[in-house]
Amino acid sequence: MRDTAQPIYLDYNATTPIHAEVREAMLPWLGERWGNPSSGHAFGRAAAEAVAAARAEIAALIGASPEEIIFTGGGTEADNLALLGSFTEPGRLLISAVEHPAISAPAAVLRGRGWIVDVLAVAADGRVSLPEIEARLGQIAQVDLVSVITAQNETGAIQPVAELAANVRRRFPAARIHSDAAQAVGKIPVDVDALGVDLLTVVSHKLYGPAGIGALYCRGGGPLHPRLFGGGQERGLRPGTEPVALIVGFGAAAALARRTLRVEGKRQAALRELLWRRLAAAIPGIYRTIAAAHALPNTLHVCVPGVRGAEVLARAPTVAASVGSACHSDQPQAIGALGAMGVPPEIAAGALRLSLGRGTEEADVIAASDALISGWRALSTLN
Amino acid sequence: MRDTAQPIYLDYNATTPIHAEVREAMLPWLGERWGNPSSGHAFGRAAAEAVAAARAEIAALIGASPEEIIFTGGGTEADNLALLGSFTEPGRLLISAVEHPAISAPAAVLRGRGWIVDVLAVAADGRVSLPEIEARLGQIAQVDLVSVITAQNETGAIQPVAELAANVRRRFPAARIHSDAAQAVGKIPVDVDALGVDLLTVVSHKLYGPAGIGALYCRGGGPLHPRLFGGGQERGLRPGTEPVALIVGFGAAAALARRTLRVEGKRQAALRELLWRRLAAAIPGIYRTIAAAHALPNTLHVCVPGVRGAEVLARAPTVAASVGSACHSDQPQAIGALGAMGVPPEIAAGALRLSLGRGTEEADVIAASDALISGWRALSTLN
Repeated sequence: MRDTAQPIYLDYNATTPIHAEVREAMLPWLGERWGNPSSGHAFGRAAAEAVAAARAEIAALIGASPEEIIFTGGGTEADNLALLGSFTEPGRLLISAVEHPAISAPAAVLRGRGWIVDVLAVAADGRVSLPEIEARLGQIAQVDLVSVITAQNETGAIQPVAELAANVRRRFPAARIHSDAAQAVGKIPVDVDALGVDLLTVVSHKLYGPAGIGALYCRGGGPLHPRLFGGGQERGLRPGTEPVALIVGFGAAAALARRTLRVEGKRQAALRELLWRRLAAAIPGIYRTIAAAHALPNTLHVCVPGVRGAEVLARAPTVAASVGSACHSDQPQAIGALGAMGVPPEIAAGALRLSLGRGTEEADVIAASDALISGWRALSTLN
Repeated sequence: MRDTAQPIYLDYNATTPIHAEVREAMLPWLGERWGNPSSGHAFGRAAAEAVAAARAEIAALIGASPEEIIFTGGGTEADNLALLGSFTEPGRLLISAVEHPAISAPAAVLRGRGWIVDVLAVAADGRVSLPEIEARLGQIAQVDLVSVITAQNETGAIQPVAELAANVRRRFPAARIHSDAAQAVGKIPVDVDALGVDLLTVVSHKLYGPAGIGALYCRGGGPLHPRLFGGGQERGLRPGTEPVALIVGFGAAAALARRTLRVEGKRQAALRELLWRRLAAAIPGIYRTIAAAHALPNTLHVCVPGVRGAEVLARAPTVAASVGSACHSDQPQAIGALGAMGVPPEIAAGALRLSLGRGTEEADVIAASDALISGWRALSTLN
C-alpha cells in the first residue's frame, strides 16, 4: 500500500529505497555486531566472514569469482579505478557518447595526460549501432581500454556491450574492456562472461542496497594500480577499513536481485507499458525515446512536445520523477544523452525520465499518469 | 550490562560499535526515507536537508564551518585527498615518523613524483619533541605541506600539532598543514583553529558512527584538486551519490561526541588507570609506553617483558584487544610506532594496545585484567 502522504516515487534510477530484506541483514551490524575485519580477535573474524559472504553474493550475481570483486566507496570510485587504474602510460581509450560523468570526466583527465580518446556515436534509438562499431574499430589502429555503459542512466537504453566486446577482442586482443553497469545490475541479467568484459562497475544503491558502497569486478583480480594508498585492504587496491554493514547490505541486495530480478523485471515492464499507454493516449505527439526491446524494463523515457519536462513535473507535485540523471541535475547539460542521439534541444527540453521499481504498483502508475497528464494539460492551456 | 557470551572488547581504536543514538538517527534512512540529494523532488530535497544538518554537526565538533567539510568514503580517502590533492607540482612534505599508512603510503607516492619528504623523529615518549621540531624546521629551506597525526593510532600518543603548526607558520607562512585526527576526534577536544591546521581528517567509525564515511576539513573550502572525477557532488571535490544514511549517522555521532566527550573521556581515563594499576601490580617489569598526560584517555599501550603480545592475547580469549593497528595487522610491521620510538624489537614484541570505549565498565576492566594476567602467567610458566 502506498503512503499517500508521499509523492509517487518514479525515480528509482536516481536511487532506490533499501529493501526490507537488505535492512534486516544490515541491522545486526548496526547494533550488537561490530568489528574491524582486519582485527585478529573474534569480533574481527566475524566481520571478515560477513564481508566474505557478501562478496560471494555479489560475485554470483554477475557470474564472477569472489576474488574478482573489489569493494569501493561507490560507482564513481569504481569507474575511476577502472579508467585511471588500468594503465600507467598513455594509450587509446574508446568510450560511447552517452557515458555517465563518472566515465566521461576521468576520460577527459586521461586525454589531458596524453591519451587519445575515441567516442562511439549513438544512433537515434539511443544505442551504439553495430555498423558504427565496425566503422570506428576499422578506422583506429590501436585500442587499449574500452568503456561503454551497460544501460544508459538517463534514457535506460541497453547498449550492445557483448557485440562491441567481441569485435574489440577480435581486432585488439590485448585491449581491456570495462562497462559501467550501475543502472543495469539488478534490473536485467548481467554476466561478465556473456558480456565479455574485463572490468564491470556495480553500485549497491541502485539495486535496493545502501548508498556508499560499490564494487569493481576485475577479471582475474588484476592487475590494477590503486588510486588510494594506505593499509592492505582489498589486496591493497582499495585501502581503508571495510564498511561491514554496507557490504552485508550490498550482498543481501545482490542475493535479492539474483532471486527475483527476472520476475520483477517482467512485472515492472508491464507497469511501464501501462504508464506509456496512458500517457500516449492523452498527450498528442508524446515521443518514446527508447523502444521497449532495448530499454531497461523499469525505465520509460519520453519527450513531451512543446513543453519543458521540468514544468510538467512542477505541475505534478504528487509525482517524484526527473528530467535526466540525478547525478548532475545541478549542471547545465552541455549535451547529454538526448543531444548525442540527435534529439533537437526543443524536443529534449520536454524529456521525462520515469523509472519504476519494486515499490511501484498499478495504482501508482494510474495515479502518476493522471497527475502527469493533468500537469501537461495545465501547461498546454497556458501556452 | 556486559554480554558475557562475547569477549570483552578492548579494541575501540580499531573500530567502535554504532551508538544507539546514532542508529536511531540512521534507521529512517534505511527504511521509509530515501532519496538522492541531487534529485529536485521532495525525496531529494529532504535528503539534501539531512546531509546539510549532519554536515553542520560535524563542522561544529571541530570548530569549522559546514562548507569546509568534504565527505569522503573514509579516513584513508580523506588523508589521500589532503596529501595528493593539495598540490599539482612537486614540493617538500614534512610528516612524522609515526603516521598511519594512509599518510605514509601517499607520502611515498609523492616521493616517487619528485617530492622531498622530511620525517620528524619521535622521542622515547612517543611524541615529536619541540626541540626536534625546532631543529628540523631550522635545517630545511622550504615546507609546502605538513601532515602530523593528532593522536597516534598504535600507541595513543597525542602529538604537539598546535606547537608544530605555529612554528611552521612562523617560518613558512604559505605551507599547508594537515593532521589525521581519525583517532583523536571524539576522544579529546579537537578544534581546527586551536590546532592551527588547514586540513583535518575525521572518521565516523572511530567515534561510534557507521564505517564507510569520513570527512576532510579544508580551511576556507579549498582549493583542492579532486582525486575522483564524475558528477558535481561535494563541489566536485568528491563526486558520487551522497550516502545519506551514513552521513546522518556520522552527524549524530558528532553531536553525541560534542555533548559527552569530556565526561566520557574522564570516565574512560579512570577505568584505563584501574586497568594499568591491576596489570602493573601483577606483571613485573610491565612497561607503559605513553604517559597518561599525553595519551588518548581511552588508550593503554603497554609492553610486557619476555613474552609476545600476540601470545598473551591468544591465552586470554575472553579479551578482544590488539598488538598494534588493525589497519595493517596482516603486514609485517617493518618499523611501526614503537620502532620509531626506539623501543628495541624484543620489547616491542610484547606490546598490547588496550583501548577502552563507551561500552567499557569497571567489571569489564577487572575481568579483562584478570584474564590478561592469567594469560601472561600461563606463558611465563611455559618459558
